[in-house]
Amino acid sequence: MTIQKIDVHTHILPKKLPAWKDKFGYGGFITLDHHAPCKAKMMRDDGKFFREIEHNCWDSTQRARECDEQNVGIQVLSTVPVMFSYWTKPQDGLDIAKFLNDDLAESVAKHPDRFIGLGTLPLQDPDAAVKELERCMKDLNFRGIQIGSHVNDWNLNEPALYAVFEAAAKLDAAIFVHPWEMMGEDKMQKYWLPWLVGMPAETTRAIASLIFGGVLERLPNLRFAFAHGGGSFPATIGRLQHGFEARPDLCAIDNEKGPMEYLGKFYVDSLTHDADMLRHVIKLFGDDKIMLGTDYPFPLGELEPGKLIESLDDVSNESKQKMLRENALTWLGLER
Amino acid sequence: MTIQKIDVHTHILPKKLPAWKDKFGYGGFITLDHHAPCKAKMMRDDGKFFREIEHNCWDSTQRARECDEQNVGIQVLSTVPVMFSYWTKPQDGLDIAKFLNDDLAESVAKHPDRFIGLGTLPLQDPDAAVKELERCMKDLNFRGIQIGSHVNDWNLNEPALYAVFEAAAKLDAAIFVHPWEMMGEDKMQKYWLPWLVGMPAETTRAIASLIFGGVLERLPNLRFAFAHGGGSFPATIGRLQHGFEARPDLCAIDNEKGPMEYLGKFYVDSLTHDADMLRHVIKLFGDDKIMLGTDYPFPLGELEPGKLIESLDDVSNESKQKMLRENALTWLGLER
Repeated sequence: MTIQKIDVHTHILPKKLPAWKDKFGYGGFITLDHHAPCKAKMMRDDGKFFREIEHNCWDSTQRARECDEQNVGIQVLSTVPVMFSYWTKPQDGLDIAKFLNDDLAESVAKHPDRFIGLGTLPLQDPDAAVKELERCMKDLNFRGIQIGSHVNDWNLNEPALYAVFEAAAKLDAAIFVHPWEMMGEDKMQKYWLPWLVGMPAETTRAIASLIFGGVLERLPNLRFAFAHGGGSFPATIGRLQHGFEARPDLCAIDNEKGPMEYLGKFYVDSLTHDADMLRHVIKLFGDDKIMLGTDYPFPLGELEPGKLIESLDDVSNESKQKMLRENALTWLGLER
Repeated sequence: MTIQKIDVHTHILPKKLPAWKDKFGYGGFITLDHHAPCKAKMMRDDGKFFREIEHNCWDSTQRARECDEQNVGIQVLSTVPVMFSYWTKPQDGLDIAKFLNDDLAESVAKHPDRFIGLGTLPLQDPDAAVKELERCMKDLNFRGIQIGSHVNDWNLNEPALYAVFEAAAKLDAAIFVHPWEMMGEDKMQKYWLPWLVGMPAETTRAIASLIFGGVLERLPNLRFAFAHGGGSFPATIGRLQHGFEARPDLCAIDNEKGPMEYLGKFYVDSLTHDADMLRHVIKLFGDDKIMLGTDYPFPLGELEPGKLIESLDDVSNESKQKMLRENALTWLGLER
């Protein structure tokens, strides 16, 4: 069985980033130092090293080559979450989003059969975000957006964000929710814990906020997907549901339906790095709600796309085909 | 089959708390307002309401009565985590710990066949903590201690804390790790998210710190147990292991063995509120490492102790007996 896999969770950057610090007059941005052929350092503009990347992070032709090698038919492209920049002044955030979206659209245009775009939005300014969402869907032909697990002091239930979700539903835009600005980050710098512990918690924070805040209830046709197999959500849905039942005065204030009712109503990617947990995730959400996602091209991702799904001996080929390809088409609002 | 269950995760408070704010000259403490018969409000000393409790939270005779009703043979008693008070001045922390431990010892003394004590320690002062640990084990006849998931700015790998763990190993003290001061708390006040999302993440932060920091490796006989089925750890062990393998420069700096090697080397309680997740937890850690834990007498706990374990039709009675009773005896260092 050869399936042209669709990888819904991949990140891409422009090869060159503007000197936003100079342009906007304040710092906090990422710069790229192309210090060697095919390699660059992502640096914070205070000089701190953030991450080393390779050309597959910006070069769509190199990505297409690697897709061929890895039997990936389509990559869904989204920016690297550190670029969300929700903390900037609204008009600067819009400027950044436009730059990233235009660049991403160019990568898609070079290999239109290979790549599908997800935009990024200046969510700190919901009006501007709606306009940029419209541009992403209508002008840039993206199939949706990638958003962070929270927006500065707002969780995703924040009423101000609802207009963006409403517009996404209207525009048939898929939404990929990715953790960022990880909770606890400043108190657990060692051992990569912001990525290993904070990120999965961020995803649960996002899912719980969308459920308890009634967003999933009010916009049932909006197609959310969450990174990393739903993060810590699969291990804690029992606690969330029990909390909802035990303290409705705290949890059921904006939505009278509990978290269990939303299982099967949103998507997650397959990035659990754990066959038994992936089985659990499939049982929890259903095999039509799991999509291949690898976090390409980063080392914390699945380095052989689809290997974990393919390794599940007790899962049917039909089911694997859904998870490796077909569910992604449905989520993206495309024909199977 | 009637098993005299042992519940390793229950909390108790003194009926009266000293006016620590007055005594120490600064605030941040919990006070109790016994506003009605058999009821009290836990209040922060700035006047903020924290939680309503009932007499089973302080009255050991009432607890014993409820144990009879619920077929619980033994409750392992520990303080309510908000009382850890690691943020206080060291000598005040010692004063608080002594007060709580003496009170808890009195409850045990009233019903010595019914209750087993776990002490609390002023971990902000490791020397004082070791001395209080010795008193807990030698004078108060506790079987171990309950500690928080972190101590102010220290994670549990902090070298300063190692002396406490070493002393615990020497004294054969069991350690129950309970989440507290939840990460992200200030940014997700709504919907009880600090308890529902932050707590499970805190537990994973604690487990990961003990593994990556080499504490479990260096003290293999020290018996740790973690609340809430290990929190989010069971859903994220794949990510932790993969992170360890992908970035040893970040994760393997203090211990060359990865997280997977420690499965089965620590205990967790059964408090998942989710039969399938409990099955997963059993598979992950082994049926000799799961112990009944209910979070009694709080509403986020298992209100019918052992019901979830007993509901597992595909688990043998022998295995259930281990989880409902025998593993707790082993963990506590008692004869089965």
